[in-house]
Amino acid sequence: MLDCAIIGGGPAGLTAGLYTTRGGLADVTMFEKGMPGGQITMSSEIENYPGVTGHITGMDLMIPWPEQCQKFGLKHEMSEVTRVSRSSEGIFTIHKSDGTSAEAKSVIVCTGSTPKRAGFVGEDVYFGRGVSTCATCDGFFYKGKEVAVIGGGDTALEEALYLAKICSKVYLIHRRDTFRSAPSTIDRIKNTPNIELVLNAVPEEVSGDAMGVNGIRVGFKDGTTRQIDVPGVFVFVGNDVNNQVLKQEDGSFLCEMTPWGEVKVDLSMKTSTPGLFAAGDMREQAPKQVVCAAGDGAVAALQAIAYVDGHH
Amino acid sequence: MLDCAIIGGGPAGLTAGLYTTRGGLADVTMFEKGMPGGQITMSSEIENYPGVTGHITGMDLMIPWPEQCQKFGLKHEMSEVTRVSRSSEGIFTIHKSDGTSAEAKSVIVCTGSTPKRAGFVGEDVYFGRGVSTCATCDGFFYKGKEVAVIGGGDTALEEALYLAKICSKVYLIHRRDTFRSAPSTIDRIKNTPNIELVLNAVPEEVSGDAMGVNGIRVGFKDGTTRQIDVPGVFVFVGNDVNNQVLKQEDGSFLCEMTPWGEVKVDLSMKTSTPGLFAAGDMREQAPKQVVCAAGDGAVAALQAIAYVDGHH
Repeated sequence: MLDCAIIGGGPAGLTAGLYTTRGGLADVTMFEKGMPGGQITMSSEIENYPGVTGHITGMDLMIPWPEQCQKFGLKHEMSEVTRVSRSSEGIFTIHKSDGTSAEAKSVIVCTGSTPKRAGFVGEDVYFGRGVSTCATCDGFFYKGKEVAVIGGGDTALEEALYLAKICSKVYLIHRRDTFRSAPSTIDRIKNTPNIELVLNAVPEEVSGDAMGVNGIRVGFKDGTTRQIDVPGVFVFVGNDVNNQVLKQEDGSFLCEMTPWGEVKVDLSMKTSTPGLFAAGDMREQAPKQVVCAAGDGAVAALQAIAYVDGHH
Repeated sequence: MLDCAIIGGGPAGLTAGLYTTRGGLADVTMFEKGMPGGQITMSSEIENYPGVTGHITGMDLMIPWPEQCQKFGLKHEMSEVTRVSRSSEGIFTIHKSDGTSAEAKSVIVCTGSTPKRAGFVGEDVYFGRGVSTCATCDGFFYKGKEVAVIGGGDTALEEALYLAKICSKVYLIHRRDTFRSAPSTIDRIKNTPNIELVLNAVPEEVSGDAMGVNGIRVGFKDGTTRQIDVPGVFVFVGNDVNNQVLKQEDGSFLCEMTPWGEVKVDLSMKTSTPGLFAAGDMREQAPKQVVCAAGDGAVAALQAIAYVDGHH
């Protein structure tokens, strides 16, 4: 029986592993089917993790993390978790894709979320080299330059406004001629002089070279196209929360979720289910930053220790 | 008029500075009367800031932070802030101890909290070298060793339970023979075999050498004393939240506070006052960890950017 099972091996899961083991929990396993490190390892540069400076990649940033945790006894099991369930006695079962399972007194789930792809040619090839899904992370790399934003929902519009303060110009590319967002946000978009709307336009292909992206071609309904020369393309066409492991056999979730499939938490990263904690990009209102996910992981771990210890 | 005023220069304030400036706010000043870095700079070793490994001091950890922020335009003003007020139009005034003031559209307050001292001889001399006020931070350095905990309230008891899982023995030193805590917590203390209660005992003096603490002498009402040989002494006798800057001339606070003087926040670090955000150890349920304070600072900054930008 594990004291704590951690599902997911990004910044939240690794920090949860660091704090649970260093805090004295004896048996803690982090289930991560791939290499630990998370989504950030796909970024070509990160400069906003506090205290770590210089030109480093997301991969560079994450290299020391697993070793730091393992020093305190965190075990990493390279298994895919399919589902987490909880018995009426409060024991959690971690179901794995190979048909085996493990039991745990507490669970910290940190499986993150996955930004949807818009589906244009070159999107995957240039991901992390000019194609981004995070304005907070990557906007500054285009300070004083022009960028394109793809999408027409709340997030796309808010991120376009964020980028407009940093970049010289933002092309907002949207398939329709109306936006799905609050009227006040749409007004702000229309009143921001350095945002150009490119409407009824479908992104077809990003072009680039060894240095990264240098432009995007969009197509219109009448068959015409337009080439927009930008070094950065930000895609905001939705987000899949990786909440599958919380889905039970009857279709319900193991804890309360928001209408968008994120886990509801309080300031302590407690979910509505005792002994189950969430951390990182899968929880509600997640800012999707490495340092925030790590902070979540630490908080969740301290709560898990107290829970396992019985004074919850 | 500043876009954002950051009050306090610890991990929360510095990260708020990094994210506000990198996110495009033009005029951001961090008010910190001393050197930036915060309380952690008094720690002789930190090993639980994710991604930063090796034997480093709290000071070492914090050295790169100010430069990282200043690169993006954060200004540091070495002034003491006495009070933050807000006009009915929503403009904040930052009142300084030299009688001058500054105005700001938004404020992130990160002034931390200060653990109270128990008042024994040597407490200050050995602080950070065997005397600690944070079990989560420093407990692991005494793995398998004996430590003393001083205090009799909720925090002291919970921290003693945390330490009992890591250390071979915990001496719980308390001035009285009853505890101010939940009955269930007191029961757990009494049922934990490696916690020894040292009651009606006043800590008098820690002893030590160049390596740090090696013991603590306690005195009893009958005039007898007892020498307890331990390399670590954890003091939990209360905490002063540094909330003075939020206190208004009529004695009220600028935003809603908990009964313990902490700032009430939601998951976004919003306070009850629009445009005012809190981050780090001064907010409710703060886990008092560098990575958590930094995460708070990032979240608060993203909210401040959105607030200043008008789409709040």
